Amino acid sequence: MPDSPKIFAKQYMLTAGPTPLPPRVSQVMAEPILYHRAPAFVEVYRRVLERLPEVFRTANQVLCFAASGSGAMESAVANLIAPGDRAVVASCGKFGTRWAELCEAYGAQLDHVAFEWGERVDPERLDAAISAGGEPPRAIFVTQSETSTGVVNDVRALAEVARAHGSPLCVDAISGLGAVDLHQDEWGVDVVIGGSQKSLMCPPGLAFASVSERALAVASERPGRRLYFDWQRTAEGQGQEPPNSAFTPAVTLFMGLDVALEMIRDEGLDQIFARHALLARAARAGVEAMGLERFGPDDPDANVVTVARLPEEIDGARVPKLMRDRYGVTVAGGQAHLKGKIVRIAHCGYYGGFDIVVALSALEMALRDLGAEVDAGAGAGAAQRVFAESGAVPQPVG
Amino acid sequence: MPDSPKIFAKQYMLTAGPTPLPPRVSQVMAEPILYHRAPAFVEVYRRVLERLPEVFRTANQVLCFAASGSGAMESAVANLIAPGDRAVVASCGKFGTRWAELCEAYGAQLDHVAFEWGERVDPERLDAAISAGGEPPRAIFVTQSETSTGVVNDVRALAEVARAHGSPLCVDAISGLGAVDLHQDEWGVDVVIGGSQKSLMCPPGLAFASVSERALAVASERPGRRLYFDWQRTAEGQGQEPPNSAFTPAVTLFMGLDVALEMIRDEGLDQIFARHALLARAARAGVEAMGLERFGPDDPDANVVTVARLPEEIDGARVPKLMRDRYGVTVAGGQAHLKGKIVRIAHCGYYGGFDIVVALSALEMALRDLGAEVDAGAGAGAAQRVFAESGAVPQPVG
Repeated sequence: MPDSPKIFAKQYMLTAGPTPLPPRVSQVMAEPILYHRAPAFVEVYRRVLERLPEVFRTANQVLCFAASGSGAMESAVANLIAPGDRAVVASCGKFGTRWAELCEAYGAQLDHVAFEWGERVDPERLDAAISAGGEPPRAIFVTQSETSTGVVNDVRALAEVARAHGSPLCVDAISGLGAVDLHQDEWGVDVVIGGSQKSLMCPPGLAFASVSERALAVASERPGRRLYFDWQRTAEGQGQEPPNSAFTPAVTLFMGLDVALEMIRDEGLDQIFARHALLARAARAGVEAMGLERFGPDDPDANVVTVARLPEEIDGARVPKLMRDRYGVTVAGGQAHLKGKIVRIAHCGYYGGFDIVVALSALEMALRDLGAEVDAGAGAGAAQRVFAESGAVPQPVG
Repeated sequence: MPDSPKIFAKQYMLTAGPTPLPPRVSQVMAEPILYHRAPAFVEVYRRVLERLPEVFRTANQVLCFAASGSGAMESAVANLIAPGDRAVVASCGKFGTRWAELCEAYGAQLDHVAFEWGERVDPERLDAAISAGGEPPRAIFVTQSETSTGVVNDVRALAEVARAHGSPLCVDAISGLGAVDLHQDEWGVDVVIGGSQKSLMCPPGLAFASVSERALAVASERPGRRLYFDWQRTAEGQGQEPPNSAFTPAVTLFMGLDVALEMIRDEGLDQIFARHALLARAARAGVEAMGLERFGPDDPDANVVTVARLPEEIDGARVPKLMRDRYGVTVAGGQAHLKGKIVRIAHCGYYGGFDIVVALSALEMALRDLGAEVDAGAGAGAAQRVFAESGAVPQPVG
């Protein structure tokens, strides 16, 4: 076995992907691997395909790819955008910008409406930008939960804007799916992209595209330039009896996802959203109680990642490093121009109340180590009070 | 936990992907998952990137994708072929045909030299087809180990043909890599594609492209129409210090691959190739001893999958089903027009001599169940004699 320092040390991970795996998910992936055409695996595959749409709140087939989440994002651009097609991207952070990179790579005539990092996408400005460009865009691309800033956009309002222009809306819901509500069908969202490694409580390596009939029809008018991420081919394979993957599926990850979807069903989506809301309320109360300013708008739906500005008098880039190397608690710092300026505590997936207490405590200790004036226990205490008022410390089921 | 019939039953799997996982590989993937930017994972990632080229026998950087093997195949076409570029595909089975599908999807001007299923690609006919088409092709695509028929092509000879025409050669080595020798640099192969789920003894979900400087240069003249599978972007990320994945890596699969590469290093590539050769000799002797005709050319390198024709007087499609459902031994039948006509026993990866004894015994029993005249123990006995003559029953290390 290669030397693997600290892999076995007791670690606490509050990062927005990978997220911690439930023991049952890890265990099922350690069972003897199955041949993907064996009846026992086909049954798992069929059950996953049946249950995934529940998480998206859709009647669509959810298309599955062995890929990072970005691969499924690329599937949306590759299937919808031909060179010269007009595309509109509304971004407010790093992951929104990825839509723009993808559209440029595929030769779109791109209108990129970029909001400040930390702002939400404003539906009215998006509406105006769409109108200003003349003909309706071939597709509109937005982000639900912008992991780089903690912002959660109002997908329902953005879907209304897209509908008014008659253009399909594609939502990157990779970090928000299963943590914040999204009614794909009720809200009329054509394409929702997900990934396995966030609130679906699995390792990275599976990505999803829930695609409406309308979007599939647009894609069929734009053939070629893709095979691995081709929606039609994937849909045909999954729609066979028995269902069949167009390419060798990532068998162990499907085994894990099958168990995770069972856990999600047991807990119930509404209960899961309520748990995430409570975890976020406690995290927000905690960072405020230790005197930190929260980053981003005051948004009751920002329940995926809690983001705080770091005091200017300390070297902010050292905070996540100290938390990890001295205390074994991994959170993320800021990206790009926010490096050293913010700390991001993710709580999407297999998280309970004491994970928040741990993260806040480690943050307090790191801040005190760097000379910031923070009362030991201020943040952890505030989180406790939020839980006490709610009646219980939230815990995931299973 | 969902009902999972027979998942826990003792099963023997002799399929060319997924292949059985060594216990150490399964165990390391069940450890608590790591954040992909944590030092402990970066160290694993760095070590995998250092050791992968040993398996390809190359000085190239080996580019890693979270994808099925077909995804890395698509990366070759997406990076090398622009619409209208001339491409030559030489195929002799199902997986060779995938190169042609990919080239067509990307708008190539395609010359597809299709050999009969069960034949090897003939270098002279390939040479003539390239010459007949006029200008040198932008790229030539072939298969090393054609899993649908058991054929292993002479990559060295095909590389000489490609070199004579000055065109880059792309080899799908997904099922052969680590089972049959391939000296990428010495033989002058520009692009070699691999996958995690065959002789690399890991689950499906990682795919590889070992790309020469020349092929990278060709790709840089063909920008756009790709992001997830873009070679330049992937190479830049992996080449950073510390190495960095362009997209979230499939963390658990990398943990497994790290252990598998250590096992491969411990056993030694030459020893591994010798083990596969011995397993294949025993399998060939076994099917011949039970009176079956072998399918495909008499090829000493066909050490990945042993393929036998089934007797015409029985319903051949029932053979793999009986082996699996009655005896718990999973092998593959024929695909497309070979359905019901052949049986394919794969032995690439974590296989030892007794796996061959088991497969041959189950095949004998299924044939006898269907009324074929086969002596019980004829095949298993022949395999035993091959091992006895070689001095030991081969076993993988670790």
